[in-house]
Amino acid sequence: MIGPRYTALVQSLPATVPFVGPETQERSRGRPFRARLGANESIFGPSPRAVAAMQQAAAETWKYGDAQNHDLRQALAADLGVAPHHVMVGEGIDGLLGYLVRMLVAPGDAVVTSQGAYPTFNYHVSGFGGVLHKVPYAGDHEDPEALIARATEVGAKLVYLSNPDNPMGSWHPADRIQAMIDAVPEGTLMILDEAYIEFAPAGTAPPIDPEDPRVIRMRTFSKAHGMAGARVGYAVGAAPLIEGFDKVRNHFGMCRISQAGALAALGDPDWLAWVKGQVATARDRIAGIAGENGLVALPSGTNFVTVDCGGDGDFARRVLAELTARDVFVRMPGVAPLDRCIRISAGPRDHLDVLAAELPGALAAARG
Amino acid sequence: MIGPRYTALVQSLPATVPFVGPETQERSRGRPFRARLGANESIFGPSPRAVAAMQQAAAETWKYGDAQNHDLRQALAADLGVAPHHVMVGEGIDGLLGYLVRMLVAPGDAVVTSQGAYPTFNYHVSGFGGVLHKVPYAGDHEDPEALIARATEVGAKLVYLSNPDNPMGSWHPADRIQAMIDAVPEGTLMILDEAYIEFAPAGTAPPIDPEDPRVIRMRTFSKAHGMAGARVGYAVGAAPLIEGFDKVRNHFGMCRISQAGALAALGDPDWLAWVKGQVATARDRIAGIAGENGLVALPSGTNFVTVDCGGDGDFARRVLAELTARDVFVRMPGVAPLDRCIRISAGPRDHLDVLAAELPGALAAARG
Repeated sequence: MIGPRYTALVQSLPATVPFVGPETQERSRGRPFRARLGANESIFGPSPRAVAAMQQAAAETWKYGDAQNHDLRQALAADLGVAPHHVMVGEGIDGLLGYLVRMLVAPGDAVVTSQGAYPTFNYHVSGFGGVLHKVPYAGDHEDPEALIARATEVGAKLVYLSNPDNPMGSWHPADRIQAMIDAVPEGTLMILDEAYIEFAPAGTAPPIDPEDPRVIRMRTFSKAHGMAGARVGYAVGAAPLIEGFDKVRNHFGMCRISQAGALAALGDPDWLAWVKGQVATARDRIAGIAGENGLVALPSGTNFVTVDCGGDGDFARRVLAELTARDVFVRMPGVAPLDRCIRISAGPRDHLDVLAAELPGALAAARG
Repeated sequence: MIGPRYTALVQSLPATVPFVGPETQERSRGRPFRARLGANESIFGPSPRAVAAMQQAAAETWKYGDAQNHDLRQALAADLGVAPHHVMVGEGIDGLLGYLVRMLVAPGDAVVTSQGAYPTFNYHVSGFGGVLHKVPYAGDHEDPEALIARATEVGAKLVYLSNPDNPMGSWHPADRIQAMIDAVPEGTLMILDEAYIEFAPAGTAPPIDPEDPRVIRMRTFSKAHGMAGARVGYAVGAAPLIEGFDKVRNHFGMCRISQAGALAALGDPDWLAWVKGQVATARDRIAGIAGENGLVALPSGTNFVTVDCGGDGDFARRVLAELTARDVFVRMPGVAPLDRCIRISAGPRDHLDVLAAELPGALAAARG
């Protein structure tokens, strides 16, 4: 029997996955992590109001969720100062990126991103046959001008930038991002991934012009709102583009419980403010731990701190392996020269205590 | 500005959606339904154990879900008597169908289904540029032999059949389905959608041969387990096919709360048995209500009853509109000759009381 006939594109795709989850690692290690600081989750948790709303919604989960995400879109739109038809809700930014790439990228189409930026975006582009053109970081920052230059040169369908940046934690001020938007070439769409925007200094996000067809923004409840497991992201953009998602998305794909949780989270700005304070404290602590160990913590506009281990990629990979062996879950950039660093998520004291206790031994072993 | 450049395929897609949700209808009507009997949801609800597990998981939703769905796959595999690598968990059968179509269907590829069968499957096929070949029902049943004949004739990549069938509620015994599997032509994959299998008579599902590359089964927690809003479906098939999902799926797309709920639901067979009893009672009641109104209820192996309104499609559409106007949410098949029927989901007494009270008036108004 010859079995199913895959498309030529799918046959060509590697079986690799963008990220290995901590549970997968725990199973292969045979024991749990003591510090979960690798996935930029918000260990401080969701708003108690969001938890209560989700607990209440659990009993009503016999109903499909609202396919239009109406209430959540209304609330987000009010919060952002745009009309609801500029907002699309989806299964996390990952889900929305997949839909967006599908809408725009046919096999052979050019897409521009930074060398070492978000792997899941690259996974989607490759998955639809797009050709990735990668621009180096300028130091520890993505390079807006170089991204635009490359997008112009290759006639890119999409150009991706995250601000603040993952995995480096760096950020550009709003005027530089706006200048990038203003320079987007005809026929290119800029994806401005603002997953971490709540943690950045005021003035990092350029004002939203919802009619601007050159840019689509992505935001999420996974980070500052502490709801990574609920899978709620949203995109903000021009109405025709937002409408386009309806041609390809899984209309009943949103979890009803998550919809309720996100709506409640949006109504609890005090919790968000508290989390931001906790994250600021944790970033300082991580920087302090790094410094005590002779390492350099990079400035962060996110809920993680990228720490330069002071060597090459092989050394940082050894540090990461030694931390993992000591039950500390962290991740690191995948590509040189960013891979001289490890990336440590903000977390409460007990998780950072484990990091503080284990980092010296991990460094010694990595050097040894 | 020319704006984003969509793919030619996406530009060609209609903006229509497979289903309009009840919340969308309620908003346009300006008032809620009193009987929610249109989406084959299980109004009897999820297992209390599942609700408790989801409520507990809500506080832990700061964590991403396990990308491998490990615990749930283990439990499903044990339940089905297969190895875990034969099971893929996804965002409802809708999500899994989308991934599967993407894996196999390139623009112009042939796909076979029944005329009037599941619209969301057709949505995915069209969405990836596949060419749908539709075979008429044989009376109120899908026609396995005709589906196979057409698949052979057009060299289909996929042939779809649901057993029991939605929207007609009919079913074939296992031996006829097995004969269909055995007749699947080389290079075709059969999708056996068993979303409603728990409600069918014993002997409706053919034994699972997990190594058989000719068929992939789809099942769900949305129907008998009462968790439609949680979005948990699963596919069972040959290992290489199941592995293939990893090339295209949203790896971290599953809601962590839903994973916990599904696992708990699987551990509560008593609840499942209770729901099945309630559904059987409700089917009898719906058939009784139909009969009292001079309509014919078709035999059902599902959690809904398809009722022949005794006229043509226009008449059934008027009946449906009149029921809707009377706050009864029901749906109907979209295509002649199936569209002489309306489709009424099983529900508890209070919902069916509303149906019983409103159907006579709806029929009278529809008649004129």
